[in-house]
Formats: sequence, structure tokens, C-alpha cells
Amino acid sequence: MKLLETDTIFAFMDIGPIARGHCLVIPKHHAAKLSDLPDDQTKDIIPALKKLAIATGAENYNILQNNGRPAHQVVDHVHFHVIPKYADRGDEEGLVIGWPIADKYSSSLHQSAQKDLSKDDITKIFEEMRSKL
Amino acid sequence: MKLLETDTIFAFMDIGPIARGHCLVIPKHHAAKLSDLPDDQTKDIIPALKKLAIATGAENYNILQNNGRPAHQVVDHVHFHVIPKYADRGDEEGLVIGWPIADKYSSSLHQSAQKDLSKDDITKIFEEMRSKL
Repeated sequence: MKLLETDTIFAFMDIGPIARGHCLVIPKHHAAKLSDLPDDQTKDIIPALKKLAIATGAENYNILQNNGRPAHQVVDHVHFHVIPKYADRGDEEGLVIGWPIADKYSSSLHQSAQKDLSKDDITKIFEEMRSKL
Repeated sequence: MKLLETDTIFAFMDIGPIARGHCLVIPKHHAAKLSDLPDDQTKDIIPALKKLAIATGAENYNILQNNGRPAHQVVDHVHFHVIPKYADRGDEEGLVIGWPIADKYSSSLHQSAQKDLSKDDITKIFEEMRSKL
């Protein structure tokens, strides 16, 4: 069920939707992860995501792109999910997001990642990353 | 802590990171939701996400962009998260993803969204969406 096609991307309905209107943008160029996709193959992705989000008619939605098994990637070809989130359905439908930082506030017993990251840690990581950019 | 800047985007470290290297790509043009961002303001977003993902050094990562409160958007200006997922940290660090379709298989008592979506339903939604594209 093809929704869109350009010279560099396809868009299809997701065949295992977690929400009404759940669909995908898929680059034609084969790359397993986003970091493997050449820049010149990326130009149509966001305009397509926008068009699809509007076509769902959903006021609220998530864009999600997973890379690697630990990050929930199941098919090793880059794909971007457009997942409507209908407020009246709560977490029965659409993407359910867990955000470990919240644990810092909700439980002092829980050793969340965030707890280990001081301002100094973040600065150090920042400097490491910037040196690679 | 600015990582990147082009004529259309900034990239910063996230100040409340849920993983080491958690960072953001933010268009300069003000738009609350992705569907409000003009196409000509989107060109640098994915190349920047790629660069950042590589700079984190993480093998696995999620790209996430939320639109609207029910979809976990907290700041009403488009931003894309790059969130490393370190396999050895499990769900103590990084994005935690809930996927309601899984409920279909894990519990017959649970009324998941997916249960209500037959192939015919998906086809009907597809046709509605396609008519708007």
C-alpha cells in the first residue's frame, strides 16, 4: 500500500500498525542504519514525513527511526515511522515512550543513567563529540 | 553546548540527557510541530542527525521527534533527539519503547489498538490518506 514515491524514497502503510495511520518513509538506497545513508539520499525524507503526518489528520504524532537491535530496529533497512498519537486512546494506541530521567525524580532507589551524568560529565562528552564533528 | 550550526539548524547537547551523548537538532525557523516547518528549512536536519549519531560513537541509537503533548512534546519548537542505546545498560539508559501491537500476542485480555485494525481497516485508512496526498 504505497502512499508516496520520489526518486529517493517510498512511503507505505505499516503492515503491523500500532495506531490508525501508522506509516513509513523508506529510502530507496540500501542502508541498514541512518549513519550509513548518503546525504544525497536524505533530501525527500522530512518533506515526506510532513506530508504523511498531515494526511493522517492526527493532531499529535511521533517520528521514530531506530538503529540496531538494542534500539528496537527489526528490519535492517532505514525506515522512519510516522505514528499518530490519539489523546483519547492513551497508551492503548500509538508509541509508548519511557524516559529514564523521570526515574531520578520518581524513585531515589532507582539507579537511572541520569543520576550518573553530572554537568561535568555532560561537558566532557560534549567536548569528545565536538572533536569528532 | 553547541555541537553544530548551519544556516538552518543548530545542534546542542540535551541538558536533561537520558543517555551519554543524547543531543538535539533544532531548526532555526520557529515551528511548533514538524508539519509546520517549511520544506526549505529541512535540508540540513538528517545530515546533522547522521553526523551526531556518528560522533556519539554509539553503535545503536534512536532518532525521535515528538509532536504535541499526548506524544510527549514538552517544548513547542521542533527538535529531533539523537539518543544512544547502549546494549549493556538495558532500559536503565536511553529511550524505552512500548509498542502496543505486542499486546496482541502477549495477552488476549488486553484490548490493544491493533486488535481493532483489520486488513480492511488498514486499506480504508490507506485510501483516505492517499486521497490527501
